Amino acid sequence: MAYQGKKLVNDPNDVVTEFIEGLVETYPGLQYLDGFPQIKVVLRADVLSATYDKVAVISGGGGGHEPAQAGFVGPGMLTAAICGDVFTSPPVDSILAGIRAVTGPKGCLLIVTNYTGDRLNFGLAAEQAKAEGYKVEMVVVGDDCALPPPRGIAGRRGLAGTILVHKVAGAAADAGLPLADVAAEAKHASEMVGTMGVALSVCTLPGQVTSDRLGPGLMELGLGIHGEPGAAVVDLQPVDVVVSHVLKQILSAETQYVPITRGSRVVLMINGLGATPMMELMIAAGKAVPQLQLEHGLAIDRVYTGSFMTSLDMAGFSISIMKADSAILVRLDAPTLAPCWPVGAEVVGDRPPAKIPVPVPVSNASSKKESIMSEPRKLNELGCILQVAIEAAAQEIINLTEKLNEWDSKVGDGDCGSTMYRGATAVLEDIKCYPLNDAAETVNEIGASLRRVMGGTSGILYDIFCKAAYASLKQNQVISSRQWATALEASVAAVSKYGGAVAGYRTMLDALIPASEVLRERLDAGDDPLTALLLSSEAAVTGAESTKNMRALAGRSSYVAPDLLSSVPDPGAMAAATWYRAVALAVESKFHPSKN
Amino acid sequence: MAYQGKKLVNDPNDVVTEFIEGLVETYPGLQYLDGFPQIKVVLRADVLSATYDKVAVISGGGGGHEPAQAGFVGPGMLTAAICGDVFTSPPVDSILAGIRAVTGPKGCLLIVTNYTGDRLNFGLAAEQAKAEGYKVEMVVVGDDCALPPPRGIAGRRGLAGTILVHKVAGAAADAGLPLADVAAEAKHASEMVGTMGVALSVCTLPGQVTSDRLGPGLMELGLGIHGEPGAAVVDLQPVDVVVSHVLKQILSAETQYVPITRGSRVVLMINGLGATPMMELMIAAGKAVPQLQLEHGLAIDRVYTGSFMTSLDMAGFSISIMKADSAILVRLDAPTLAPCWPVGAEVVGDRPPAKIPVPVPVSNASSKKESIMSEPRKLNELGCILQVAIEAAAQEIINLTEKLNEWDSKVGDGDCGSTMYRGATAVLEDIKCYPLNDAAETVNEIGASLRRVMGGTSGILYDIFCKAAYASLKQNQVISSRQWATALEASVAAVSKYGGAVAGYRTMLDALIPASEVLRERLDAGDDPLTALLLSSEAAVTGAESTKNMRALAGRSSYVAPDLLSSVPDPGAMAAATWYRAVALAVESKFHPSKN
Repeated sequence: MAYQGKKLVNDPNDVVTEFIEGLVETYPGLQYLDGFPQIKVVLRADVLSATYDKVAVISGGGGGHEPAQAGFVGPGMLTAAICGDVFTSPPVDSILAGIRAVTGPKGCLLIVTNYTGDRLNFGLAAEQAKAEGYKVEMVVVGDDCALPPPRGIAGRRGLAGTILVHKVAGAAADAGLPLADVAAEAKHASEMVGTMGVALSVCTLPGQVTSDRLGPGLMELGLGIHGEPGAAVVDLQPVDVVVSHVLKQILSAETQYVPITRGSRVVLMINGLGATPMMELMIAAGKAVPQLQLEHGLAIDRVYTGSFMTSLDMAGFSISIMKADSAILVRLDAPTLAPCWPVGAEVVGDRPPAKIPVPVPVSNASSKKESIMSEPRKLNELGCILQVAIEAAAQEIINLTEKLNEWDSKVGDGDCGSTMYRGATAVLEDIKCYPLNDAAETVNEIGASLRRVMGGTSGILYDIFCKAAYASLKQNQVISSRQWATALEASVAAVSKYGGAVAGYRTMLDALIPASEVLRERLDAGDDPLTALLLSSEAAVTGAESTKNMRALAGRSSYVAPDLLSSVPDPGAMAAATWYRAVALAVESKFHPSKN
Repeated sequence: MAYQGKKLVNDPNDVVTEFIEGLVETYPGLQYLDGFPQIKVVLRADVLSATYDKVAVISGGGGGHEPAQAGFVGPGMLTAAICGDVFTSPPVDSILAGIRAVTGPKGCLLIVTNYTGDRLNFGLAAEQAKAEGYKVEMVVVGDDCALPPPRGIAGRRGLAGTILVHKVAGAAADAGLPLADVAAEAKHASEMVGTMGVALSVCTLPGQVTSDRLGPGLMELGLGIHGEPGAAVVDLQPVDVVVSHVLKQILSAETQYVPITRGSRVVLMINGLGATPMMELMIAAGKAVPQLQLEHGLAIDRVYTGSFMTSLDMAGFSISIMKADSAILVRLDAPTLAPCWPVGAEVVGDRPPAKIPVPVPVSNASSKKESIMSEPRKLNELGCILQVAIEAAAQEIINLTEKLNEWDSKVGDGDCGSTMYRGATAVLEDIKCYPLNDAAETVNEIGASLRRVMGGTSGILYDIFCKAAYASLKQNQVISSRQWATALEASVAAVSKYGGAVAGYRTMLDALIPASEVLRERLDAGDDPLTALLLSSEAAVTGAESTKNMRALAGRSSYVAPDLLSSVPDPGAMAAATWYRAVALAVESKFHPSKN
């Protein structure tokens, strides 16, 4: 099924020109030659041909392979790139203009991919430039390893390995070498590299329909970067298998395309073909390295992973392997400001380990906890109060389960009661192990119990609530009522901050914020702590009930129409008010048993 | 029509882990925490928490957005990245492990995208880390501008603007600032940036089928990076129009999402969503800049174009605009080794012009040519010989037209005669203007005539032939027969080099190589020049006729079965032999008119 390809472009005939305009907007170190539409040349903004004292390194070719070649223009790599229309070699005049724009007394090296059009147009431009008095050398790169050795000249296509040749030549030129030496290094590099591609889709030319050559579940091995058919169309396989096949093909002892044998040092390039996400490229890189090491007995000196020489919107990748020697590594590692050469692939000195163990938590906290846990259980006064309060809170939540579920079935997904029930029963179970004489640690453990069994948003929010209180409480040896108020404020602030809700959003905060505010207010006003707590808990209940009149602004209820909400309170707020009120009444009963 | 998405992966559940393995293979400055499969943390290999003397900057979130966030770990940007499974927030233990691994005495800043899961998991980890004694701050980024201002907390999603916040915070931390200041700069940056996306396709989760929400010819505006539906599905439009719409939405005076007004300085980010070729991203960048300048009255300080925060294999891009001030620019320009932060977008000093005029050819050649052209036409002896030779060569080609076409119809596309005829008639027409007293210039002009009318491969090859001869001949004031032989050798070498053929490939070289060799041989042997030329031309004819027995290794004939070729000579070789023989006979007739 052929279909119209979708692209975010304007006139399909202008794509290369408009690409260049965007490129130079993005990279101020680049500029382009203006004045003739067919001349599409990107060059370093800091090079003047008349005074340039290094060998200029120039490449180019048809468009549609971006970032190749223009994205590799910059100090240390290409001096200029000559861009043709999509999959069309640039004309001779355009190449000549590029040569004239950047070539100084030391001459220029043309690096050309092995396609007839490129060879001839660059060749003619080279001859013409020589006739004008320029020193010109040309190196042709044909790194394709997918097809059997060609009978004639039509064979090995120039693929992504060309980018590695650019880098070697650019660094050699940048080091000040004369033209003959730069050309020799480029030629040597081109003979050390082999490439093969695999694609899940063919590419779509701007304004054209997409071919249906590759149907669902199929992939193509060894295809070209213009969508030329490849070696074979086969069933899609796991990338492990694909990588293994491609590596074997490149390193084939039969074709001997690259002089790589067991024990060789190599450089690896995983090149995206245009529409391949980085995730898939990195997965391929991660699989290719151990295969090269273990199955082929090679040492991997560098890995370059990215989209360097693409084929419009083709999905797939190519793998290039270059035999590395110290001279090549020096060139590959040399600094460059070319925008699309990868940063950070160099290895300086010994390579650090790729993985380190997960660090353990700072030890004092856990050892302290252990010592508490192992103590015989003799509750002090605080411990007794906490035990009573926690058990009462949990029991009231259990009692409220059905009601919470009923409210939630009208405004949410109906499981608020069941979720809170799980938390409450877990707390009643775990309380045997809580270090109740240490309020901070106990609150922390409650959070862990709740998150473990409640899960989801509410579990995390209650754990955050407890963690914030823990961090606040543990700063004190003895905890006063004011410090409990401070801890509650910290808990409310943390839930608001991380959960994103504030007062009036129809959440549990609509119970807890009034509770926190009244507690602080009454303590400041001089009330005794128990009175302040009781008043605070009444505020929590009032606040929770007021959610009946609120529009939902957070959580699932925010998707429910306002009129459906008006008859029921927010179940989360009611649950919070319920356990908080239970705590207050339990504390009261502890101090004034007569009242109950 | 939903269909199985094609991906180059292994087990869909392992994609994030395998991505990380490839990432650290590619970038030796990164490493990851090992030992627990659910803990997927990438960190700087050069940071030890115990001794790290700067604020650690940590981000993270669900996978599927590569390179975000792990690709931005490096000196000057993130200290660690916490990776969740695809589109799933990382668990608290994983975040805590990352905090513990890199946070030193100065504490850490967590930069979190505004999704409930991320906010809560990072929030809980932050509280737990605080409880362990770490200094922790958290900044939440919600830069989405696609949807109307949200009623509650669910609203503004964190999109690619987050990457700019990372850079600002990372540079601030690298500058040695304390945690509060780093957090303040990050928060400020997060409030200055707005983002909106547009997509041509929805993304496919590994192992799942692709949704058909976006059919042919449709695009979606304002969608989220997990494929969440956006503001509208509309007909695909030219990217000019798309960019214009997105910019207006981000800068809307109604929503006032970003405090940008006419005259503001801004930074622009064009972010690919995973399957968008760089060509399309750069085109969008090139259109956004003038629109921001001219329609919105903004000054563009920096442009970042690439794939920074993707959505698996989604095709499309997002645009982010950040209000820039000098403090933000210092942070954005600060050096970083984070592998996926773009290199070369900084502006140092005055920005060089984005375009310069096409350089004119070196002037002495053309002025010399003009002076020759304007001279009155008085042919010297050389000029007379050239005239006779050229006219004879052209006439013989014209005479051979039908025969060449006939041969070519058997082994090629049947137009060799017609193509050569066009060249010959053009030469006969143009010869009136050739500077015949200057052999080098005349040969050069013949090449130009041939390429102009012949086109294609043969036109370029003949132009290369002539250009190489020109460069060789013009080194001499007076041209001897040996220098003609040298020029012929240069021509043959150039055609072989750029065309890729050698002797025996069944091309015109099979006439010209023997001709060149015999010419040199006879001159070296002491033959008089005319004799040498005549013998050379006989060798050309013999060579051309021998192509009957050759297998084609270049050009169209290489696709023809060998037995079909055996009855006919290569038409290109026959054409070359014919004009060369005609030249020799014409020269002979000039010196020995009696013989004819």
